[in-house]
Formats: sequence, structure tokens, C-alpha cells
Amino acid sequence: MARTLKLALIPGDGIGPEVVTEAVKVLDAVTAGSDVAFEKTHFSLGAARFLETGDVLTDDDLAAISGHDAILLGAVGGVPGDPRLKNANIERGLLLKLRFALDHYVNLRPTTIYPGVPSPLASHGDVDFVVVREGTEGPYVGNGGAIRVGTPHEIANEVSVNTAYGVERVVRYAFEKAASRRKKLTLVHKTNVLVFSGSLWQSTVNRVASEYPEIAVDYLHVDAATIFFVTDPARFDVIVTDNLFGDILTDLAGAISGGIGLAASGNINPDGTYPSMFEPVHGSAPDIAGQQKADPTAAILSVALLLDHLGLADQAARVREAVVADIAARDGSPRTTTQIGDAIVSAITTPALENSH
Amino acid sequence: MARTLKLALIPGDGIGPEVVTEAVKVLDAVTAGSDVAFEKTHFSLGAARFLETGDVLTDDDLAAISGHDAILLGAVGGVPGDPRLKNANIERGLLLKLRFALDHYVNLRPTTIYPGVPSPLASHGDVDFVVVREGTEGPYVGNGGAIRVGTPHEIANEVSVNTAYGVERVVRYAFEKAASRRKKLTLVHKTNVLVFSGSLWQSTVNRVASEYPEIAVDYLHVDAATIFFVTDPARFDVIVTDNLFGDILTDLAGAISGGIGLAASGNINPDGTYPSMFEPVHGSAPDIAGQQKADPTAAILSVALLLDHLGLADQAARVREAVVADIAARDGSPRTTTQIGDAIVSAITTPALENSH
Ligand SMILES: CC(C)[C@H](C(=O)O)[C@@H](O)C(=O)O
Ligand SMILES: CC(C)[C@H](C(=O)O)[C@@H](O)C(=O)O
Repeated sequence: MARTLKLALIPGDGIGPEVVTEAVKVLDAVTAGSDVAFEKTHFSLGAARFLETGDVLTDDDLAAISGHDAILLGAVGGVPGDPRLKNANIERGLLLKLRFALDHYVNLRPTTIYPGVPSPLASHGDVDFVVVREGTEGPYVGNGGAIRVGTPHEIANEVSVNTAYGVERVVRYAFEKAASRRKKLTLVHKTNVLVFSGSLWQSTVNRVASEYPEIAVDYLHVDAATIFFVTDPARFDVIVTDNLFGDILTDLAGAISGGIGLAASGNINPDGTYPSMFEPVHGSAPDIAGQQKADPTAAILSVALLLDHLGLADQAARVREAVVADIAARDGSPRTTTQIGDAIVSAITTPALENSH
Repeated sequence: MARTLKLALIPGDGIGPEVVTEAVKVLDAVTAGSDVAFEKTHFSLGAARFLETGDVLTDDDLAAISGHDAILLGAVGGVPGDPRLKNANIERGLLLKLRFALDHYVNLRPTTIYPGVPSPLASHGDVDFVVVREGTEGPYVGNGGAIRVGTPHEIANEVSVNTAYGVERVVRYAFEKAASRRKKLTLVHKTNVLVFSGSLWQSTVNRVASEYPEIAVDYLHVDAATIFFVTDPARFDVIVTDNLFGDILTDLAGAISGGIGLAASGNINPDGTYPSMFEPVHGSAPDIAGQQKADPTAAILSVALLLDHLGLADQAARVREAVVADIAARDGSPRTTTQIGDAIVSAITTPALENSH
């Protein structure tokens, strides 16, 4: 009973296409000969498409993407300062639009310091945590506005919107995640300043916590959390936080774990109403695009998250093992994007051949 | 022509009184025998005062404090989770109220990695930057609200308010600061998401930059900035940013520079309409209060900022030199709060005695 899954590919801009090529190779390798196959559709979206057609994401694009089982995205964004992109805001119009339209209320960002990867931290214990970042609310809703723009009397407001509905569902996801891991959950917010949203987050965590007596719950202000990220990152298991704090913390998490070249993420709609979207945390890095300099590992680890999400836990584990083996074998000599992808593919296929005997 | 300056002391809670005692000793030592004297008034404010009287900061307190030339604050905040403080929010009602009422629109937070201090970073260059954090706007204005609180239909909003007036004055301060330093200014914001406030900040920086052709200006998203804080903090000279991003970045800055036990700050009203307020970045740390375990260095370096602000640059430099000497002499053996204060006092007074021969 073969299963065919529909995968939307959005390679995007800059290094996006290069890393997606390797990620797809890995996906194909790990599913080859199994009872699951991916039917892929390419979507040409991003700065390049905008410059060609003036479109960022049309209703037709969105409808077509929605019909898939999952999405793999490389990176979007043109060359910084490109005057032709001045009013485009590809990030808002494409990336954030997808996250909001497809109700990706969980933005899942795991951090591991893999053995062999040089972390900028002088010392760190066993670091393995996951940030559950809310994806559809907070200051990301775009509910700001400005008046008297360009005058000395300009006022520009941003509104962070937080709802019981939105906070509770992501908090519940985080508790479930903690229950399946080391049973520790840290809420990160700024409750002493953002008292309204802070109190909604804190009371929601308190309430849901009573259903999970086995989970140890604590709280950190976002500023204090950044301190622990560099002094004691091993203390964290699951962090649940709002959209903006999650954005900031996960870049920092990527940095301490040896670079966002390794940081994967999933934009997840746990209800399954819409397809979830998997992407490396890094950007499009137009300065090194097309030069085979990008590390495709983050995109490949995003494939592991995608496989997990689709219930293919064995294949996800094989991708992760291959990545860990590849990272452990690194000796600092430079490799091309393709070489890294090939190495991971062969780490996947070699043991599989052995097993088949 | 002796000059008498009026100093308001707010030792506050937890370790606040201990570190303020040492800071005052240093202030007295560095001004002893000079033509400037400080007349000090103690204000008993903070969680302890609230528990005793129910007051956080009365109009009379505020009026009395306003009549001073400067304020030195230790730390405020009771024991976390103390049920009697549940609805007090000392941070908002005292610290933030002072910053707003006294129009402290510049929150100045320098970061140096001093020789001899163990940084959590495996390697770092010559780190010496200053964050100019806006202090009277942004998400700190308290303009949020919530409806249907405690129901499944709760909505909690926070409003970040940004004005041309408020942004321009802090941006101008930052450019002046950069002009007196290494002539590099980095705006940190999240312009790709917070498009209204982001565009006000970016356009203000662009406009003021044209008056400072000698200053190199760049821009980083706040998430990317955290990466550089751990991978290349030496790249920064002056960072200008909003209230919330500044809060987060300066705790991280404290951590990479070897702990917020060394991080000083000034809440400055550059116009001189109101007294400026100097305080260590760290909190009240009730868990170690009264045990002589707190490092008073951040409070002492805050005295240096205070002296600078009052035009006493020589004395400020002597405090900093004494701190640098004390830090360089540290061998990791534990010292009491008083011992550290005494050592810095003697580093100040010894060369002064020599000079007098
Ligand atoms: C590109 C940007 C809009 C995005 C965000 O802020 O979420 C990115 O930083 C991320 O973390 O995925
Ligand atoms: C105590 C708190 C309100 C304060 C802030 O957020 O500004 C503190 O974190 C700081 O940085 O001085």
C-alpha cells in the first residue's frame, strides 16, 4: 500500500535553491524503496519572481500550495538595499503570509549542540532544547499604523495581539512536547512590562500546567533568558514563547549551537487543516548565493522535522543520524553545498544497503 | 568655589543596599578633598517600603527626588512569587515610573570585556560598545489592554508607541556618542516585521546620518544582532535601538562581558530638565541579599557614569581605572561585597596620595 504525499517546494532566493536541492536529494534517498513517495511541485516565489512579475504571493499560488501535504522552503529575500525591492517586503508578503494563511501556530525550532561543532561558547553542557514559538499572533499581526508620516509629528504604533485561543493552543502543544521529552517547560515573556499579554500567557501556562503535574514549569523574562542562553543553555528543555521573543531567541540559539547553518524549523499547523512548512532558520544570504558555499544541513534537518510531522519517524531518525555522523566527521576543510548533501545521502544509503542483506 | 551636588539615593531591595553602600564609598573617596561634594538623601523605596506602607512611589516622593541633581539606584523588586507583592509590580510602579516621569529618554548601557574577566565566549576581540536604548517609548508605554479577561475569549493587546520627537532625540544622542567614539553606529530594529515603527526609526537614522558624514551607519535586525553579540561583538561601537530590543540586548551584552555583575547603566535626561538616574543593570537578587555575596562593581561603574554626566570626567576616569585594576587583580578567590568596594577605594586613594607628594 504505497502512499503518495504531495510536497510543495519553494526554493526561493539566494542560497535557497542550492540548499533545497540537497534537502530533496536526502528526502529521496531516505524514502527510496519504501512505501512512501513524494510528488513534488515547484513554486517559483520570492524576490526573483517579484522582480519578474510584480507578484509576491497570489491567491492562486496560495490555493495551489494549500492543496499539498507539506511545504519545504529554502529562503526568501533579495539583495539588501536593492531599490527595486524597496516596497516589496517579501518577508511579510510571502513568508509571514504563508505562516498566517496556513495557520502555522507552532513555530518549532530545536537546538542541539552537536558533538564536533565548534560553539562560540567556551563551555556548555549537553544542549538539547526546543523553542515552541507562537506563529500567528503577537507583534507579527501587522496591526500597526502611522499618522503624519514624514513630519516631525509622526506617530507610529505597533499592536501586539494575543488571544486566549491563540495562546492556549500553542501552550498545549508545548506541554505535550515537554511530556514527550525531559518534562521541563519554561515560559519566556516580559510579564513585568507587557502586563496584559504577559498575564494572559502566564495564566494560561498556570492553568494548563495543572493538567500536567509531571512537568516542571518555570518562567524567565526574555532578557534574563538571553543570559542563560550563553551561560547555561543546558538547563532548557522546552521553551514556549511569543512570536517576537521566539524570533530573537532562536537566532541566538542558532548562534550558540555553532551557527544558523545548522538550525532547522517547522511552521506547523498541528490540526492538519493546512499543510505545515519546513525551512532552515537562515536567510537567503545573497552574498554567497550560487557559489556552493552554503551549508545545506539546516535544510536537511528541516526535512527530518517534515518527516516527523508526516508520521515517518524512522526516516526522520535516519536523516538525523546521517547528519550527526557527517558533522562528527567534519575536519574543518571546506566542502561544497553538494558535497555535504552527497555525504549525508551516502551516510543514509550505506547502512540501509547493509541492513538489506 | 566648592560645588555641592544633591544626590538622591534609592538603595532599594535585596542586594541593592549592599552595592549602593560600596558605590557611595567610592563616590566619597574619589571626590574627597576636591571642590565638589555630594549631599545625599536616602529614599526608602521598593518592595520593603510597599509591604510596610502600601506605597510604591508617591507624588511627594517623586517631587522630592526631582529636586536632586542625580539619582543613584541599587535595585528594586521583592522575592519572586511573594503573594503580598502579586499586584504591586514594583518594576512598573517605581523603576519605569521614574524613567518616564523624569523623561529618561536615553538609557545608556556600555559593554566592555575587561582583561581578566572570564567571558562565556570562547574567543572575542576587543569588545567596547555602548547601547543607546530609548527609554520613554516603545512597548514600555503601558498602552495595552485586555478584554474578557479570564475567559476563553480573552484578547490582550500591547501597543508600542513611537514618535518622531521621541525617536529623533535619542538617535541624535547616539550620533553624538558615536562622533566622540569610533564613529560607527548600528541601528537595531525589526523593520521587516514592525514596518510602521521600523520605518520611523530607519528614516530618522537616515536623515540624521546625513548631518554626520564621518559616521559609518549600518542596520541589523534584532534577531541577527543577537548572533553577532556572540560571534563578533567587537564589531559594535554605538548601537541605537528601541526600549524593548535594548532591554534584551543589554542583558545579553552583560552576559557575554562576564556577567551582569559588571554592567552599569545610566537613565539619562540629556536636556537636564530632570535628574538622571544611574543603576546597575542587575536586579535585586533576593536569594543572595544580605550575605555580602553581591559584586558591587556594576553599581560602582554606574557612579562613573554619574560623574561623567555631571561633568566630572576626571573623577569618572579614576573610578574606571580603579575598577579595571581591581578586575585585573582578581584571581577567582571569593571576596565579600565590602572587600571589593574597599579594594576599589584603595586603588583610588593610593595613587591620589602619591600624586599629592
Ligand atoms: C524573515 C523574518 C520575517 C522571519 C521572522 O521574523 O519570523 C525570520 O527572522 C524567521 O525567524 O523566520
Ligand atoms: C525591571 C525591568 C522593568 C527593567 C526593564 O525591562 O527595563 C530591567 O530589565 C532593566 O533592563 O532595567
